[in-house]
Amino acid sequence: MPLPLTPVITAFERSPDRGRGLARDTRVRWAFEEVGQPYEVRLVSFDAMKEPPHRALHPFGQIPTYEEGALVLFESGAIVFHIAERHAGLLPDDANARGRAITWMFAALNTVEPPILDLQTAKFLEGDKSWYDERLPLVKDRIRDRLGELSNRLGNADWLDGAFSAGDLLMVSVLLRLKASGLLDEYPNLSAYVARGEARPAYKRAFAAQLAVFTGQQPAG
Amino acid sequence: MPLPLTPVITAFERSPDRGRGLARDTRVRWAFEEVGQPYEVRLVSFDAMKEPPHRALHPFGQIPTYEEGALVLFESGAIVFHIAERHAGLLPDDANARGRAITWMFAALNTVEPPILDLQTAKFLEGDKSWYDERLPLVKDRIRDRLGELSNRLGNADWLDGAFSAGDLLMVSVLLRLKASGLLDEYPNLSAYVARGEARPAYKRAFAAQLAVFTGQQPAG
Repeated sequence: MPLPLTPVITAFERSPDRGRGLARDTRVRWAFEEVGQPYEVRLVSFDAMKEPPHRALHPFGQIPTYEEGALVLFESGAIVFHIAERHAGLLPDDANARGRAITWMFAALNTVEPPILDLQTAKFLEGDKSWYDERLPLVKDRIRDRLGELSNRLGNADWLDGAFSAGDLLMVSVLLRLKASGLLDEYPNLSAYVARGEARPAYKRAFAAQLAVFTGQQPAG
Repeated sequence: MPLPLTPVITAFERSPDRGRGLARDTRVRWAFEEVGQPYEVRLVSFDAMKEPPHRALHPFGQIPTYEEGALVLFESGAIVFHIAERHAGLLPDDANARGRAITWMFAALNTVEPPILDLQTAKFLEGDKSWYDERLPLVKDRIRDRLGELSNRLGNADWLDGAFSAGDLLMVSVLLRLKASGLLDEYPNLSAYVARGEARPAYKRAFAAQLAVFTGQQPAG
């Protein structure tokens, strides 16, 4: 019988956000930590990400990738789902509750993340353009539309649908991108929701591990 | 034993694209048709979509939703996945191939669709702004980046990873949004890929069914 394989993921060799944990490997690290699955990380430079060997793993030249023997996956959502399907703790056993948790995974990535990413796209790719200042409020209002709807649905609940799930893991990860913008502060229940995610021991371990790449220090304990 | 429930989805009462099939109910109809699952459609007006009864089904006030007894889902990706998990034909049996097909589902919705949607957002929400004409080439180039990478990966293959899967269903659905822009024509293998999707009998039935809502006529056959 073959020994169990330790999955290997890729992450940025140099952190573009200086260890704030916004790169997409953090979501995958978090999922591993929630279910107690050890993993290894291979760091990739920005140049190497665009070269054929990495493109063979990830056609869009990004991180993270996931390798487990002959299996190669990319897309953080798909990797988190793969982990959640194989271990207890991230998807409910009840079939209907499981379907709803998966719905929140897709909602985080296809409905909530795109307008949030537009804010970063505007800053990094259009920050020097003449229209940047005038256009920014439109971009922010489109984010507010989504946050308002999400805030209404969450209400006073701790998590989006019962117990913490992979849907919450991805939604919190997506909302964390807004921390620096102040937009999250306009929705106290969403701020508290994100804080609950950050307070989970598994998130703290994942955050420390990605930060250690930037600081060059091993995470404590 | 209870009778099997026919799932009910929602779709626009009036087609915003005049029946070109770009609303997200088409993807779900296509998935139903691929697996041979009958379904019912409840049409929703633009006003009703934003009212509490529909918001209870879909917190972001959109279509499609999916109802099957007590189960309520939203997000076209999650609904397609739900259908694919319960019927043969949209996900491979082999565990690794299944993981790769799911990866393409997420890639379609989280990596390829967002820059494509930006083109529509720019047109509909910023078409009257002073920066529209100057900014448009940037938006199109971001789409070209993704299309070039996808084109390289697809190569001469018929589908993204072996047999047609829910990953192809979603990717073709996303790329169809580009038909009017002419951008797809710059990548002959992607144009052919989309045409292969459109040529599938299941897609044709789904397209006819959504068109019938707009024309007010029953689809033939």
